[in-house]
Amino acid sequence: MTRLHVPVALRWSDLDAYQHVNNVEMFRLLEDARITAFWRHADAPADDAWPTAVLDTGPHATSHTLVARQEIEYLRPLGFTRTPVRVEMWIGHLGGASLEVCYEVHDGPVAGRTGPSPGGAPYAKAATTIVVVDAATEKPRRISADERAAWEPYVEEPLTFRRRR
Amino acid sequence: MTRLHVPVALRWSDLDAYQHVNNVEMFRLLEDARITAFWRHADAPADDAWPTAVLDTGPHATSHTLVARQEIEYLRPLGFTRTPVRVEMWIGHLGGASLEVCYEVHDGPVAGRTGPSPGGAPYAKAATTIVVVDAATEKPRRISADERAAWEPYVEEPLTFRRRR
Amino acid sequence: MTRLHVPVALRWSDLDAYQHVNNVEMFRLLEDARITAFWRHADAPADDAWPTAVLDTGPHATSHTLVARQEIEYLRPLGFTRTPVRVEMWIGHLGGASLEVCYEVHDGPVAGRTGPSPGGAPYAKAATTIVVVDAATEKPRRISADERAAWEPYVEEPLTFRRRR
Amino acid sequence: MTRLHVPVALRWSDLDAYQHVNNVEMFRLLEDARITAFWRHADAPADDAWPTAVLDTGPHATSHTLVARQEIEYLRPLGFTRTPVRVEMWIGHLGGASLEVCYEVHDGPVAGRTGPSPGGAPYAKAATTIVVVDAATEKPRRISADERAAWEPYVEEPLTFRRRR
Repeated sequence: MTRLHVPVALRWSDLDAYQHVNNVEMFRLLEDARITAFWRHADAPADDAWPTAVLDTGPHATSHTLVARQEIEYLRPLGFTRTPVRVEMWIGHLGGASLEVCYEVHDGPVAGRTGPSPGGAPYAKAATTIVVVDAATEKPRRISADERAAWEPYVEEPLTFRRRR
Repeated sequence: MTRLHVPVALRWSDLDAYQHVNNVEMFRLLEDARITAFWRHADAPADDAWPTAVLDTGPHATSHTLVARQEIEYLRPLGFTRTPVRVEMWIGHLGGASLEVCYEVHDGPVAGRTGPSPGGAPYAKAATTIVVVDAATEKPRRISADERAAWEPYVEEPLTFRRRR
Repeated sequence: MTRLHVPVALRWSDLDAYQHVNNVEMFRLLEDARITAFWRHADAPADDAWPTAVLDTGPHATSHTLVARQEIEYLRPLGFTRTPVRVEMWIGHLGGASLEVCYEVHDGPVAGRTGPSPGGAPYAKAATTIVVVDAATEKPRRISADERAAWEPYVEEPLTFRRRR
Repeated sequence: MTRLHVPVALRWSDLDAYQHVNNVEMFRLLEDARITAFWRHADAPADDAWPTAVLDTGPHATSHTLVARQEIEYLRPLGFTRTPVRVEMWIGHLGGASLEVCYEVHDGPVAGRTGPSPGGAPYAKAATTIVVVDAATEKPRRISADERAAWEPYVEEPLTFRRRR
């Protein structure tokens, strides 16, 4: 039951006319959390590595990812706060060439990068299916042993969406 | 089988580093199509009315909408084009205080504002559940008879998502 | 006195809480107009070429551009309209490795891609200094004879900014 | 020589295809810093007040601001960093109904909310002229004594832009 805990700072421009984070911007927050956790950034100092960050970033990376599917339920409006929100993430399914990332958006603060969820009612629940792709061919490629080893500790039950018709 | 056909122009800033419309920006295109079709804009000339546009917009509107849920499947990458894309929309469910808007994103051009779908493989399929809310109380309110009459001609079978786990 | 006339469609998400195009989004509109006019897009049909579009786009282009400087005066608020706005553009200075693009944002429609300005009070006046850069070295490179020939017909007096301190 | 020091976290989506913060997004960072410093947010705890935050925010505020003018020089490319950047701000001119906010964008971290600049070469220098407006009439209104008292300690020499033509 170990999750990733990624802080994401809000911006005023995330708000809509009702002073709530806009529904599209919520996906932007999730994207930012996901990239922070999974993509290794060349300029990050070595001691700043995320436990799951084994994909290379930038124009010379040999792999990239495609988003195949997303689903979200907005449970209560998220207003502006200067404290970064805490995006809790885990892997709901780890397949041959794809994985499903699950998220819950909570009030911060964030104690560490991984750990159990402190619980509480989230603002939103979401899931993204991402496919790992060879950058040259843009075809799916198998998840490597290194990637699988980095990601397996974060595999948990996938989210259940309650409002699906 | 009548759908709404809303043109949405792409912007260069919608593209990611791989020259495809970013997965988050795709929701922005859907939002733009949905607001065009459903919200009446005070400054629009009378002959520019969309058949479904019965909700008032702006800071003095008595109602607004909340997005409760979204789901999308990205079927093939959408590259840049100067021709606006055609967002086909219909209502997959019309409830007491909420409706589910279904979308397919296709290549343009758009012949008219409503009509049957010309078919073809979409870039993406998506659905948004929106709740109509009283602006003063932020509580859901019943869809009015006028709104229901405007929206009923566009009720069709809801989308089936194939990649749901 | 020939200008480029580039239509740019607004989006609802460009608006701020006061229903005016947000000051940052205005730069997004200008960026879109500038890229449309100056960058050749691989997927555009041959008869869709802009007269000034001689820079290649995409990850394999040998050149790209850096923005060195921008300046804008917002003269009156731009509200939402379904008709694309008309961004009038010209070149206020054509240097050895850089050019200054000048803009005025007007109500559409747009009759053609080039021509004199029909006049009228703009919503905003702006200028961007862009430097042409070798993609491999990221150093400025000289504007080529072909580029200069494509751009010279659009050189006009630069904008005068009235509110500079 | 006291400046405001506002941390602003970058997002991956701020980056362009060259892995630098996009020129338009840089204005988004400045906007976020400016609103943090000048606008009082109803939900912020009392001990979280910024020294200059005397303008009320939200749909019921009696005043708002219009941006009349902006100018920026991009001095060197800003790549991605997980440490928030430090936006140093001061007031270059405090007029009857308007003020000019000046900015320099530096590497973080940020030691406190106000203080002298530690110096160093900025990524960008910019200025924004904002006009304080009565929310009901949308006309400029005089800066109040309270506002002036809050802002005067941050008045410094305005920025000099070196690349103006």
